[in-house]
Amino acid sequence: MRQINLALIGFGNVARDFAALLLEKKAAIAARYQVEFVCTTIATARHGIVNCLTGIDLAAALATVAAGQSLATMAQMVALPDTAAAIAASQAAVMIETTPLSLNNGEPTVSYISQALRQGCHVVTANKGPMAFQSRELRALAQARHCQFRYESAVMDGTPVFNLVEHTLPLATVKEIAGIVNSTTNFILTAMEQGQDYQAALAEAQRRGIAEADPSLDIDGWDAAVKLCVLANGLLDANLQPAMVSRQGIGELTPAMVMAARANQQKIRLIARLTNNQGQVTAQVRPEYIPADSIFYNIDAFSNLLLIETDLMGKLAIVEQDPALRQTAYGLFSDLLTIIAATKTN
Amino acid sequence: MRQINLALIGFGNVARDFAALLLEKKAAIAARYQVEFVCTTIATARHGIVNCLTGIDLAAALATVAAGQSLATMAQMVALPDTAAAIAASQAAVMIETTPLSLNNGEPTVSYISQALRQGCHVVTANKGPMAFQSRELRALAQARHCQFRYESAVMDGTPVFNLVEHTLPLATVKEIAGIVNSTTNFILTAMEQGQDYQAALAEAQRRGIAEADPSLDIDGWDAAVKLCVLANGLLDANLQPAMVSRQGIGELTPAMVMAARANQQKIRLIARLTNNQGQVTAQVRPEYIPADSIFYNIDAFSNLLLIETDLMGKLAIVEQDPALRQTAYGLFSDLLTIIAATKTN
Repeated sequence: MRQINLALIGFGNVARDFAALLLEKKAAIAARYQVEFVCTTIATARHGIVNCLTGIDLAAALATVAAGQSLATMAQMVALPDTAAAIAASQAAVMIETTPLSLNNGEPTVSYISQALRQGCHVVTANKGPMAFQSRELRALAQARHCQFRYESAVMDGTPVFNLVEHTLPLATVKEIAGIVNSTTNFILTAMEQGQDYQAALAEAQRRGIAEADPSLDIDGWDAAVKLCVLANGLLDANLQPAMVSRQGIGELTPAMVMAARANQQKIRLIARLTNNQGQVTAQVRPEYIPADSIFYNIDAFSNLLLIETDLMGKLAIVEQDPALRQTAYGLFSDLLTIIAATKTN
Repeated sequence: MRQINLALIGFGNVARDFAALLLEKKAAIAARYQVEFVCTTIATARHGIVNCLTGIDLAAALATVAAGQSLATMAQMVALPDTAAAIAASQAAVMIETTPLSLNNGEPTVSYISQALRQGCHVVTANKGPMAFQSRELRALAQARHCQFRYESAVMDGTPVFNLVEHTLPLATVKEIAGIVNSTTNFILTAMEQGQDYQAALAEAQRRGIAEADPSLDIDGWDAAVKLCVLANGLLDANLQPAMVSRQGIGELTPAMVMAARANQQKIRLIARLTNNQGQVTAQVRPEYIPADSIFYNIDAFSNLLLIETDLMGKLAIVEQDPALRQTAYGLFSDLLTIIAATKTN
């Protein structure tokens, strides 16, 4: 049985569900991979920054946080002054990174990931900022340190997108991508088609924890633009930055426009598009009229779709229906297991 | 550069497009995998059974067959009496199997695959028969001989289905599958919705090479039932046989029924369903009324869809839009590259 140390940087809803998944699947992980995961560090803004090199009891940590208490109150915990110190002291083989980040520059996440990679630690992140803003630097660093840097959850939660292309479409080149990748705007547009008003729909999306804290990032198409950058940089080794994406949000759409489209057997959806023209990658986000026979037509509410056109496999679409928190946690989990499988002989 | 010998058993449209793909991607294969493929055997009912251990010129073989000549007329070819003799003499590391087979028992394909695996040869097949009828035996044999046996193209051409679950959904258990997996019936139903008659639609499907030689296998739901067995046996290690699938085809559907559904904002689609209830696998094929808001509603003509529900990732759908011959050839190609990647250190 290999023992693999993990550092959980960020311990919000996603990371906690990931921790629950590790507990639920402990026996299956041992049976399939001959691995036991040991969490040595948890760093969270609200519940303390701690490590315990002999292993943190994750069930107890979940209970402690659920009770609103600090992780530092648990037995054998060593409290650390900040996240950088926690990463440095973690002795982790894999860092699971889920901190809140700025969607303007990807910080502080980029710094945490750089630090971990420099320490020779594999990194799994649910954040889109690092690949959108610093993909070249982070991937070069990972390669130099022989570490994996994985980010499946950054787009469409745990739905295989990066793993799909990497592991199931060998030697195929992505030519075009078109997708519905922002759940908040999709939920609002679906609700408006059903006659609800914009503010009520937005409030409902926020209540369900889908909308970003600042909804303007969703509404203005910025979130979708950032995701296009992750796709371009991850799938095509491009160096696309969010500011380079041509962008139009849904803010100027009126209920009358949505209903008029409906009367015309159309729906309006916020479509993110990426085109690879011999290595020249361009991207745009804008509302489009979707005809009734399109595969995009029935992507409602929180469902997402990515239509990927490659040179060798034509058009493939992958759809995530009605995702929940578990799907994002599963993206982290599958990335972690991919690292474990790839490093089996090391 | 590793030299990998290939035996092409069957050399119809799919195998020839696969051969063309090997030629097109020769440089990319060498760069990515440090491998050169050498075809030592081609066995075909119509154009001869030959081998050449120093390597068959695939471009010349394609030209020879296109000219309607026997492969035995090419220089340095050794003609063999039958396919079994060709497999035995091939010195192949991987067999690419695309022979016509009986959809009643999977022969003669099952025998060819058994022979190759007993010789320690990896096998890639585009046929669904082997996994539908003899999955337990063939997989046990492959395991005993430390060989890979891959069959991505058996369902939805090269669309990642088996590779999707194996490589991108680790430790997830498939609970349910629902799909549109038979292109002939889907094309006929779509054409009938547009007012065309059944016979004209069937003739068009046959002209495009999509319909099976005996269309009753499609129409009666047998092809879809066989594919459900490949899914059940491949994804769930079940031992489901086609005769065990509850089956109803589209033969009793009338244009009036199709148009009545249409008037009711519904479509009729032949849906294949698989349910895994704690390891108890049941399957059925039958026409279903699809409501307008379903993701199945816009799967028209030759497009296929598979909706996969797992315990950890919820509902994922994968869609193949308007496939061509190249997609089936690519399924063989991706399986071959998966074997090459997995045996890199051997």
